[in-house]
Amino acid sequence: MDLLEEINKRGSMVDGAIQNLMPIGDPDELYRAMRYLFDAGGKRLRPAALFLSTEAVGGNPQDVIPAATTVELVHNFTLIHDDIMDEDNLRRGIPAVHVKWGLSGAILAGDTLYSKSFHILSQTKTDAARMVECMVMMSITCIEICEGQWTDISFEKRNDVSEAEYMEMVEKKTAILYAASCKMGAVLGGGTPGEAQALWDFGRLTGVGFQIYDDVLDLITPEDVLGKVRGSDLMEGKQTLIVIHARENNVELDVFGKREATREEIDDALKKLEDSGSIDYALATARKYVVDGKEKLDVLPESEAKDILLALADYMIERKF
Amino acid sequence: MDLLEEINKRGSMVDGAIQNLMPIGDPDELYRAMRYLFDAGGKRLRPAALFLSTEAVGGNPQDVIPAATTVELVHNFTLIHDDIMDEDNLRRGIPAVHVKWGLSGAILAGDTLYSKSFHILSQTKTDAARMVECMVMMSITCIEICEGQWTDISFEKRNDVSEAEYMEMVEKKTAILYAASCKMGAVLGGGTPGEAQALWDFGRLTGVGFQIYDDVLDLITPEDVLGKVRGSDLMEGKQTLIVIHARENNVELDVFGKREATREEIDDALKKLEDSGSIDYALATARKYVVDGKEKLDVLPESEAKDILLALADYMIERKF
Repeated sequence: MDLLEEINKRGSMVDGAIQNLMPIGDPDELYRAMRYLFDAGGKRLRPAALFLSTEAVGGNPQDVIPAATTVELVHNFTLIHDDIMDEDNLRRGIPAVHVKWGLSGAILAGDTLYSKSFHILSQTKTDAARMVECMVMMSITCIEICEGQWTDISFEKRNDVSEAEYMEMVEKKTAILYAASCKMGAVLGGGTPGEAQALWDFGRLTGVGFQIYDDVLDLITPEDVLGKVRGSDLMEGKQTLIVIHARENNVELDVFGKREATREEIDDALKKLEDSGSIDYALATARKYVVDGKEKLDVLPESEAKDILLALADYMIERKF
Repeated sequence: MDLLEEINKRGSMVDGAIQNLMPIGDPDELYRAMRYLFDAGGKRLRPAALFLSTEAVGGNPQDVIPAATTVELVHNFTLIHDDIMDEDNLRRGIPAVHVKWGLSGAILAGDTLYSKSFHILSQTKTDAARMVECMVMMSITCIEICEGQWTDISFEKRNDVSEAEYMEMVEKKTAILYAASCKMGAVLGGGTPGEAQALWDFGRLTGVGFQIYDDVLDLITPEDVLGKVRGSDLMEGKQTLIVIHARENNVELDVFGKREATREEIDDALKKLEDSGSIDYALATARKYVVDGKEKLDVLPESEAKDILLALADYMIERKF
């Protein structure tokens, strides 16, 4: 099995549907701002997870295309608003939405995208009870994403964040959207409550692994691959598992929270974090979460989709960007 | 009938429920920011319209308390984000959310409030099919509110906005939430499709009247009553029916778009707008919309709730603030 081919096959189902599900409406500039990040690419991991979960419980992926589009658009919505809050001006190698359309434009593009997501979700073929379940799930998911982002920002003013606090933040800010993507796929695909719960747990655990690994990538990936400034988390003073491990091991990071850091200073910090074992610690933790997540799928019958989900879990902590 | 007493009676049902429906959660500061404008007051016109619509089609208002809370919270969400975009620092006589919690805090408080609205709506006692209808209605409503706000902002760069363009903007930005409040009340109250449509139209037409009258109030109301700077629309260069009428009648408004205007300059502009008949024209237009809106209720059976709705329509263009 070629994993990337399997992901792309499912991603292209969403790409092919977007023009029907979210055409450029009126005011056209608003809709261009809403479509901008989606059209700029992305790996479509959340839609892929949703499609595969539907397939793994015996459902038809063609029936859940609107739902799979929804989770990608919700992800885009959070990126647009996060980039404003984090003052990140580059995303996917292109100017962020707030750079192109200004503060008001980016707030509104995010709000509209989020509203539209519910509307698109409602176009998924299912019964009313399941639709209500999915809409409530999406609502609770976004509440937790916001709570996680609030906590993440509040961490920037603290230098005593514990590993447990960090893990809870990551679960809310990042992992829950993977959990919801998988569970929604299971619910819409007609899975049992046990299957839906297993896929939720799978998404949550591997999602935590994804984010911890993402924090590592932010440090070690060349900028032309990353599509944004390398080491930006460090410069912004973001708490990550790496930084928390380093602090607990008395590693001095002069570059932490220093927005004007040079490339050399970032490289120097990276060296220190390698020597202290902080990066290895983060990688090992990410790996553990992925292993635990994969185990959750034991309750599912064997299928090609299940195999791809297991491979996807590994990919989340092995990808190069 | 004492209209304000009838509105307050219904508003207090929402006030009494908020602590259960949206308690201060964790992170507590986020939830305080979300509750801030709600707790600061407001006339609860949208919840009242929803309750009354339920009653007017024979439903029980006790059953729709979560839905009535939802429309107020969605209104609060739009206020929080609009105040950022419009750089309005005062709301209901107190500092705006972005003044108290900063830009990131206000963006997140709005996002979370909006997410929570869907979750609260889902707690309304009804069947799944009606719930889906209401959630989709809420989603489409918010899409149009955002489209209206985008258009409103784009008007600030133009000095050739037509009356028709302005009316369409107002319908989206303000009127549709009244329309949705009324229709949602009808759907949840078990009304016929004809009744639901009539209440939608009623909310839409009287909502347009409400906004046009609101633009007048912004000019003529003393600041201690208004809770924000008088004439702020003029200073911000907002297109209103008053300004459009004035421009079409060649009235020179030096103060337009001048953020540092003095109280005397505002008074002077007000005098000009009175002399040109621009304020009277806006008032007459608002009145016409309310008359048309009230007519839509002819299809409803006679009831106390219907009488209160008709009185509420008049109030929307007769209130002092």
